Amino acid sequence: MKVYEIQEKFGLDSLAIVERPEPSAGPGQALVKLRAASLNYRDLMTVKGLYNPKQPLPLVPLSDGAGEVVSVGKGVTRVKPGDRVAPIFSQKWIAGEPARTKLSASLGGPLDGVLREFAVFDEDGLVHIPAHLSYEEAATLPCAAVTAWNSLITLGKLKSGDTVLVQGTGGVSIFALQFAVMAGARVIVTSSSDGKIERAIKLGASDGINYKAIPNWDKRARELTAGLGLDYIVEVGGAGTLEKSLRAARVGGYVGLIGVLAGSSKELSILPVLMQNLRIQGVLVGSREMFEEMNRAIAFAQLKPVVDRVFPFEEARQALEWMEAGSHFGKIVIRIP
Amino acid sequence: MKVYEIQEKFGLDSLAIVERPEPSAGPGQALVKLRAASLNYRDLMTVKGLYNPKQPLPLVPLSDGAGEVVSVGKGVTRVKPGDRVAPIFSQKWIAGEPARTKLSASLGGPLDGVLREFAVFDEDGLVHIPAHLSYEEAATLPCAAVTAWNSLITLGKLKSGDTVLVQGTGGVSIFALQFAVMAGARVIVTSSSDGKIERAIKLGASDGINYKAIPNWDKRARELTAGLGLDYIVEVGGAGTLEKSLRAARVGGYVGLIGVLAGSSKELSILPVLMQNLRIQGVLVGSREMFEEMNRAIAFAQLKPVVDRVFPFEEARQALEWMEAGSHFGKIVIRIP
Amino acid sequence: MKVYEIQEKFGLDSLAIVERPEPSAGPGQALVKLRAASLNYRDLMTVKGLYNPKQPLPLVPLSDGAGEVVSVGKGVTRVKPGDRVAPIFSQKWIAGEPARTKLSASLGGPLDGVLREFAVFDEDGLVHIPAHLSYEEAATLPCAAVTAWNSLITLGKLKSGDTVLVQGTGGVSIFALQFAVMAGARVIVTSSSDGKIERAIKLGASDGINYKAIPNWDKRARELTAGLGLDYIVEVGGAGTLEKSLRAARVGGYVGLIGVLAGSSKELSILPVLMQNLRIQGVLVGSREMFEEMNRAIAFAQLKPVVDRVFPFEEARQALEWMEAGSHFGKIVIRIP
Amino acid sequence: MKVYEIQEKFGLDSLAIVERPEPSAGPGQALVKLRAASLNYRDLMTVKGLYNPKQPLPLVPLSDGAGEVVSVGKGVTRVKPGDRVAPIFSQKWIAGEPARTKLSASLGGPLDGVLREFAVFDEDGLVHIPAHLSYEEAATLPCAAVTAWNSLITLGKLKSGDTVLVQGTGGVSIFALQFAVMAGARVIVTSSSDGKIERAIKLGASDGINYKAIPNWDKRARELTAGLGLDYIVEVGGAGTLEKSLRAARVGGYVGLIGVLAGSSKELSILPVLMQNLRIQGVLVGSREMFEEMNRAIAFAQLKPVVDRVFPFEEARQALEWMEAGSHFGKIVIRIP
Repeated sequence: MKVYEIQEKFGLDSLAIVERPEPSAGPGQALVKLRAASLNYRDLMTVKGLYNPKQPLPLVPLSDGAGEVVSVGKGVTRVKPGDRVAPIFSQKWIAGEPARTKLSASLGGPLDGVLREFAVFDEDGLVHIPAHLSYEEAATLPCAAVTAWNSLITLGKLKSGDTVLVQGTGGVSIFALQFAVMAGARVIVTSSSDGKIERAIKLGASDGINYKAIPNWDKRARELTAGLGLDYIVEVGGAGTLEKSLRAARVGGYVGLIGVLAGSSKELSILPVLMQNLRIQGVLVGSREMFEEMNRAIAFAQLKPVVDRVFPFEEARQALEWMEAGSHFGKIVIRIP
Repeated sequence: MKVYEIQEKFGLDSLAIVERPEPSAGPGQALVKLRAASLNYRDLMTVKGLYNPKQPLPLVPLSDGAGEVVSVGKGVTRVKPGDRVAPIFSQKWIAGEPARTKLSASLGGPLDGVLREFAVFDEDGLVHIPAHLSYEEAATLPCAAVTAWNSLITLGKLKSGDTVLVQGTGGVSIFALQFAVMAGARVIVTSSSDGKIERAIKLGASDGINYKAIPNWDKRARELTAGLGLDYIVEVGGAGTLEKSLRAARVGGYVGLIGVLAGSSKELSILPVLMQNLRIQGVLVGSREMFEEMNRAIAFAQLKPVVDRVFPFEEARQALEWMEAGSHFGKIVIRIP
Repeated sequence: MKVYEIQEKFGLDSLAIVERPEPSAGPGQALVKLRAASLNYRDLMTVKGLYNPKQPLPLVPLSDGAGEVVSVGKGVTRVKPGDRVAPIFSQKWIAGEPARTKLSASLGGPLDGVLREFAVFDEDGLVHIPAHLSYEEAATLPCAAVTAWNSLITLGKLKSGDTVLVQGTGGVSIFALQFAVMAGARVIVTSSSDGKIERAIKLGASDGINYKAIPNWDKRARELTAGLGLDYIVEVGGAGTLEKSLRAARVGGYVGLIGVLAGSSKELSILPVLMQNLRIQGVLVGSREMFEEMNRAIAFAQLKPVVDRVFPFEEARQALEWMEAGSHFGKIVIRIP
Repeated sequence: MKVYEIQEKFGLDSLAIVERPEPSAGPGQALVKLRAASLNYRDLMTVKGLYNPKQPLPLVPLSDGAGEVVSVGKGVTRVKPGDRVAPIFSQKWIAGEPARTKLSASLGGPLDGVLREFAVFDEDGLVHIPAHLSYEEAATLPCAAVTAWNSLITLGKLKSGDTVLVQGTGGVSIFALQFAVMAGARVIVTSSSDGKIERAIKLGASDGINYKAIPNWDKRARELTAGLGLDYIVEVGGAGTLEKSLRAARVGGYVGLIGVLAGSSKELSILPVLMQNLRIQGVLVGSREMFEEMNRAIAFAQLKPVVDRVFPFEEARQALEWMEAGSHFGKIVIRIP
């Protein structure tokens, strides 16, 4: 079978398609024919060696995918051949709160990822995907959608009428927008592009702020909420935007800190956190149970993930470069033959 | 000013319109010109002496209304003349969890209610009503809507994709239906009338069960959820329906017990509560903070309460009889001149 | 190895010790040498055929035990030979909320239980027991202690200064007393025996009510809380005591419904549930994660389970009869050779 | 009556005792004879003009005190003459979540504080103090104790067996230590003084880390929790210690950010927040309901606040200088004649 590897050293040049023997399912496992994979910024950083430089190579990149169960090992009851499934990001985080042991086994590093024709997963590490979604659409869910769900719904307990600010139009932000709209919340989106703001409004956002035109977007966001500030901020810009997010949040508000962009250091005033009773919440994807309850909601609402562009299997590098360019809206997908 | 009183003894025959001097607002108070009132089953029972037989008379009936602030006393900052407002049911339940001291001062008994032209309230006992609602529509909110909100949203923490069963098409049930739909949940409604089920489906319910045609509606409800059972049950039928509700709920499910209909005793098996890890939650309206956050959600969604019928002020008795007949869909309102 | 079976038909007479071949651990499993088992009322009902009459026989009875890992199968990482462990009651409830699939595989019915010398468990179905406990003491934890923990701590979110009423001095009640005391809460215990009340007070209870001397123990309990009512009631008496429990609880209070005693039907007024905003919460043991966090608390506090009496392996029947007699205080244990 | 004022300009030199007419209670108000006041770091900063430089002067300093109700105005029901009471910090935060309107009216700035013989408060702005506490002891509660309670109990939902790290031995930290011990949690305290660590251990802390001897106290703290990291960190050092706190917390842990020391800016890496699913929670005192439930717990446990030193009324300046010197353990109190 065909498998993408990051070979020998990190870098886009090290990506190569190789042949590996097709694996088979042991007891409690399922063999999955992968049909599509989607990109997260973490994947780009992993390929470039910026996420975890100590990651042993070769590594099959990409954590998020979807496919069909081909065969199952002894004792498997959760899935059967023909089932449409997606592997969960942290293969050991089934339910409950996060813990080190649950977070250690994530796909696309340290474990081999999904950019390959076949893969074997523990039956416990799989979820069924909503029937109305194509494999390309379902492949967008494992990290970006579950992270948005965990942040706003599981941890944030978002309710109708709440106000949510989402930064930009990347994968997590668009899912956050869609879930917030689904829940009856009001969404304000920030972007550097009026065109993207227009598309976000078509998806249900109430307002957009072009942060190029209005650099003090935090002030503008407060004005849009009658001076109260936002209930929820989906913070994906990291150190570069966090201070403004803290100032945009209401007293007692919630700032969900998401994504590896958040990693860099910065001079940061934490006074607003204190004086406004804010909560800054780090969010690193979520559990299988969250994934399953999210899928139920997606299926009921017939919600469609926003796929920016689908690349053929051979063009994984181009897909990563497309992500790097940063002009996408929603998720970038790779079809697997 | 004109005031309805339950005079001397209980009963529909004791309802009379009398003249009282117009009150004026003391320090911290507001004088409100009431424009509309709405009926709850509690009001019918109160008039008939079945709710609290020790209630001193005369009493101005009805707890729910809406009107306009005419003047304010010294030190008032929350409202000003011209504001469109509704009094809260428990005048002392401002925020936080319920407590005996917070629940004691409810309108329509023991305190005088809203079926009168003018009334004085503490500024803390008022909320602003959504701008897109008429007084008739806003008058439906204080008990029925806040109860539905408290049960599903505050206590129940309903989320998108959850399943909710609402019993019948009375005031609380229709608000529960509307709030659940607003939150992205799936709603199953039970009714004895196909016509009412049709109307509920137009409001966003996914399914209806005619419990005359299908007496084992609990079984049917389970089937509609692939055998899992419901996440939430809005139980308004009381002892007569509770056992079926317990059987319709999923493992770990939530049964919100609402409304004075629930009062009567009955042989009840509590085994399902235990064996299914169920939660039965008594819900008696809610706080001002819940009312305010609900209003924000209603305003954002431009949600319209379902008004069954509006009676003129002179026909309060007919309105109560209309409620007693039980064929209404949504809320019964009385216009105040 | 020696194994107790309920043979052919239900009844204490059907209990017999038989020889079975010693099992061995497959992949992901551990072989455990059981050292002690403890009794729950459910076990007595199971033996007598009153819990689940359709349970296929023969069945190894008793769900709760503790022992030592003898060997482990391929891929096992959670335990190793020599580890002191206890199996969890619902072998599939690892974490998160209850669900039908999680509750189906409980020990002592439908699965074979722990009254035997050796048993094989999935590694995921075991927890390490606190170091300061003997096997006899640790064997008391899986059902009774986890149920008390789940009810008061996980679901109830008990905090210092809260008031808790525990009914009687059986296994769950005594653990509830101990956990509540550990958490800084005030405990009132009811019993028919002044001697038992005295022992409960030695364990940290603040007050006792002899319900034989004071049949209106609900009134007395309210008086002891300055008329407010209790924050928490640990309801183990079922239909026979539930109404008094509802009247003893404060506005907004929590009644944890526990134990198979609760199963029978009864005329029940649900008015207090509604009018007092009460929560009745069915509690059926709990997850492995609850068990583990409970063990951490027990270990930190060096808390000792209350063992009423230890029977030798040959006297399982006498142990069950001792439970039936109902004069125990705390847990009844059987030593396994 | 005698009143302390910060006169004309900020600074310790501007503190003066002046005469003002004794106030009287209006409708809904109570006149309180203050008996003691306690210091918070915020008071020191306020006097020096570092907290809110725009604060109009003169201002009566200090937010925390306790005293006796002398007389009450019309309609007052919550208190009566002779009651022992303390005013709440944010006079408008009665219950529920924080909000801008609730936080605006805090004592000791912008409102006049408690360093005076008499003061008038709204009855809603007072709580009864535990009977076993002297006025000096009760005066320590309003900010420091309520902040610790809110952070660990209300927001943090601390439970038995959890691990808590408290920084230093100032007012909030010692209350956090005492409440955590009361709840059955394990406490690790950091300090620059072995003597203070010893005293903290006498109060129930399990371990101490001298951060002068062990500058990498975060590592040491992790070791003390078997490498897992702490469940809760009571962060009072602000920007200077926050990074170490983030590294000391477990996956999914909680860092309560407390105190005005936290205000300064600093280069801060937020990567651990994300990668460990941490929650940073700003905490600014709490509501009256929290104060009341805390008092109930304090009364039940007969817990005694740790008073470092009591100064006579005339030596307010010395008391503030004593706080500035920073060698106190627990709370600094001023007796009011």
